[in-house]
Amino acid sequence: MNGAQALLRTMAGSGVEVCFSNPGTSEMHFVAGLDAVPELRGVLCLFEGVATGAADGYGRMAGRPAATLLHLGPGLANGLANLHNARRARTPLLNVIGDHALSHKRFDAPLESDIDSLARTVSGWVRRTARSADVAADAAEGVAAALGPPGGVATLILPADVSWSDGAEPVPRVPLRPPSVVPEPVIEDAAGALRGGRGDGAHPAGGGRGDGAHAAGGACVILLGGAALRRPGLEAASRIAAATGARLLCETFPARLERGAGLPGLERLAYLAEFAQSQLAGTTRLILAGARAPVSFFAYPGLPSSLVPDGCQVHTLAAPGEDACGALAALAERVAPGARPQVQPAERPALPGGELTAQTAAAVIGALLPEGAIVSDEANTSGLSLPAATAGAPPHDWLTLTGGAIGQGLPVATGAAVACPDRSVLALGSDGSAMYTIQALWTQAREELDVTTVIFSNRRYAILDLELQRVGAVADGDMARSLLDLSRPDLDFTALARGMGVPAARAASAGEFAGELRRALAEPGPHLIEAVLGQPG
Amino acid sequence: MNGAQALLRTMAGSGVEVCFSNPGTSEMHFVAGLDAVPELRGVLCLFEGVATGAADGYGRMAGRPAATLLHLGPGLANGLANLHNARRARTPLLNVIGDHALSHKRFDAPLESDIDSLARTVSGWVRRTARSADVAADAAEGVAAALGPPGGVATLILPADVSWSDGAEPVPRVPLRPPSVVPEPVIEDAAGALRGGRGDGAHPAGGGRGDGAHAAGGACVILLGGAALRRPGLEAASRIAAATGARLLCETFPARLERGAGLPGLERLAYLAEFAQSQLAGTTRLILAGARAPVSFFAYPGLPSSLVPDGCQVHTLAAPGEDACGALAALAERVAPGARPQVQPAERPALPGGELTAQTAAAVIGALLPEGAIVSDEANTSGLSLPAATAGAPPHDWLTLTGGAIGQGLPVATGAAVACPDRSVLALGSDGSAMYTIQALWTQAREELDVTTVIFSNRRYAILDLELQRVGAVADGDMARSLLDLSRPDLDFTALARGMGVPAARAASAGEFAGELRRALAEPGPHLIEAVLGQPG
Repeated sequence: MNGAQALLRTMAGSGVEVCFSNPGTSEMHFVAGLDAVPELRGVLCLFEGVATGAADGYGRMAGRPAATLLHLGPGLANGLANLHNARRARTPLLNVIGDHALSHKRFDAPLESDIDSLARTVSGWVRRTARSADVAADAAEGVAAALGPPGGVATLILPADVSWSDGAEPVPRVPLRPPSVVPEPVIEDAAGALRGGRGDGAHPAGGGRGDGAHAAGGACVILLGGAALRRPGLEAASRIAAATGARLLCETFPARLERGAGLPGLERLAYLAEFAQSQLAGTTRLILAGARAPVSFFAYPGLPSSLVPDGCQVHTLAAPGEDACGALAALAERVAPGARPQVQPAERPALPGGELTAQTAAAVIGALLPEGAIVSDEANTSGLSLPAATAGAPPHDWLTLTGGAIGQGLPVATGAAVACPDRSVLALGSDGSAMYTIQALWTQAREELDVTTVIFSNRRYAILDLELQRVGAVADGDMARSLLDLSRPDLDFTALARGMGVPAARAASAGEFAGELRRALAEPGPHLIEAVLGQPG
Repeated sequence: MNGAQALLRTMAGSGVEVCFSNPGTSEMHFVAGLDAVPELRGVLCLFEGVATGAADGYGRMAGRPAATLLHLGPGLANGLANLHNARRARTPLLNVIGDHALSHKRFDAPLESDIDSLARTVSGWVRRTARSADVAADAAEGVAAALGPPGGVATLILPADVSWSDGAEPVPRVPLRPPSVVPEPVIEDAAGALRGGRGDGAHPAGGGRGDGAHAAGGACVILLGGAALRRPGLEAASRIAAATGARLLCETFPARLERGAGLPGLERLAYLAEFAQSQLAGTTRLILAGARAPVSFFAYPGLPSSLVPDGCQVHTLAAPGEDACGALAALAERVAPGARPQVQPAERPALPGGELTAQTAAAVIGALLPEGAIVSDEANTSGLSLPAATAGAPPHDWLTLTGGAIGQGLPVATGAAVACPDRSVLALGSDGSAMYTIQALWTQAREELDVTTVIFSNRRYAILDLELQRVGAVADGDMARSLLDLSRPDLDFTALARGMGVPAARAASAGEFAGELRRALAEPGPHLIEAVLGQPG
């Protein structure tokens, strides 16, 4: 069979069920081959950033590898920003990037570009298949690399002649490798930190291992991230906290956080470094479980980049790719054998009336969030009240902007809905960031996905108003201000949604928003609500 | 002054008047500095691919350097596809890419990525400024590199602390260098080729210089590209053709082609290699004037990549960066001293009635195209009838998809309109490609640009129907077909346009299309017409 057919069968055999696609000429044999492999479903996206973001959302939720099909260097380039987010999320994701036939490359045809260099900026694994006979093995290895450990984005570059030439055969999947087990001395080191002492593995903030000052006493924080944010990790961590008095924090931008009533509640480390510093003030031992040592999102004149307090000892219980849940369970067994997790009680805010603000909108969402919902959160400044308002809602998953490349929220929601057709998906966007990948709505309509998109519309890049002050810049003239302003003309997201086949409504009061949200959540298929925010009084 | 202020003053002093911008936190000092430099206007774009495409359109038309302001690696990534097109167009364009402060980079904050590698894939010049004191000189060099020769995309990476730190001063512009003059022996070589012999500089198709078989007799073709497609180059080439019998062809995807009544008419080399081969059949001497030797856009099984006929001698009169117009003038002086250019007579098609097809739509455009119009052509398969239908329209400029990365047409039109506020701009898009950078409409509305966008809507990636056959793939199943199909749901471009503040109408017959186009061209400001094409009968 030809290379494309062997590739498709190998991908399917390796557990790939969906390929988010935006194909071109060099991918036509791959597309043509799909009909013969019904286990593998192509989902068309109208822009590559939608395809890669959807693959990220799919991979975070599906428990199986995500995949994309993209067209040459420019197609990969259009998808890179959301692959950057997927890289930070460590989402298991295989890109298949079509390229010119090998013999064509020396002619520097118009679409020729350096795909390999682009791919390396986001991929832990890059392979350019040279012969049809190799493509199946390369694909199986690519899926294995995506699944890890540590896992992440893998990219297979597929010349057109590899696709169309015969002589290929599918290969079986590469056996899954479990995450690395955390060794006993590391567990003991964390246990020592919890007991107030300094274990052997401790290292001072920002430096190497073992040379810092002894830091007995003071406060201990466990910073959870990655796989530790699923129920087993959260429950183990909560037991540890209950028994030892350690405080739990969640990394600032989790790929997937399980939360809600009946789960241990968890404060997230703040995006704004000033707030994060006060959350961590007084911490003398910081235990990392699947999270990295906290750093400021941006640099600011005169402020430190590391958020680890001076003199605080950092203990890495589980690095990315290690079995953070297993390590937390082992640690709980040692320091909290009888303790029980402290879980969030079921409670919802009352449905508010009056003006629609970021605060009342959050209360409406907290009041109505369905059980098992998946929330894709790119609400940015409009989302600051959401964590508190939804903390006691029925159990749900919260997916965030892991890499800071905006334009992630709508595509991630799209992919999560493909992965979990029985669950309600809520995409929380804001007017600025939603415009980067607004084409996601069309795929939601085509695939009849149960996604409710809320666009918080404040007619500003409001985050930049804030950042302008924080970096110490003064912009009081018209030209500078116009670059942060999304009015002139106002965007009409209901028209944009209807233009892509998604029913839409606008809400300008808390009551209207509640009515529209209730209706959208009750009806199957995609909906969009433009939440026009007033300024809080 | 701080680095951002010195950078802005240096850019303005070097001839930059407009910066197409999509800023973030690391660019706040640049944004804040704009108000103090009124010679430099920031134009906000809601997606980076719009900013880079607009800069490309601006740079093709303005006769001065274009500029962008983008946010870190993901911002550059989102703009790369249109920078790829700009690279192929050799547009003079300076990107300013904000980055984290130097001291912040080692912390691998969420937005950290390999900007330098991304930039190198599209830029002939890349500089990472290390100190505020250097930024002005770096910017002046960057503008000079963009202007060339040979010119093209230049990228300046600007760490946030370089922007915010003091100690910078603006520097004057780097003096312009003229394009390289083509030496006398090369002119003589081309003259020899025109006389039917083989000059010293000839080289056989696909090989090195000078070793091919002698190829006297047969047909001579002059392939024009780049700067040779402006009036002086066209007139010189036309005189040569009139005197020698050589045939003129235009490169397949010109960055900017001057055409219409009173200008020498010029057939473009076809996109489809089969057609291009028949255009070039029998050619024994091919003279390149600002164009590259023709190659197939994609590879196809069993077909050659080079479109130069076997045994044809290739003579490079002017390579990119060389003075193609001067070389053509010198050549005309030698071989055609008394000849006059043959120009296209003024003629327009009659306004058609009946069904709206690609053919009748082209006739309507030919009938109504205003004098001095700028056409940004990304109509793809719907545009095949346009060249003939508009050949005798009043003089106009034609801008095409130079690099094959779709999503160029609307942004390029946007930038061309900023560059030429007194000219009417016509963006010809198709439903598939328009969706990549549809956000361009908002910038057209904000800047009140006189752009009429026509979306040819056939509900297909029609080019891929064709390409599927050409690569020899068979896709007769539902899954493969669904990946080429833009219906389910139909896109409503009038709703999308209104959602971004652009008045819009739909036309489903040739008469409706003529009425809407006439109205849109007569009214100032942006308009969109969705031309719903029937299948030709």
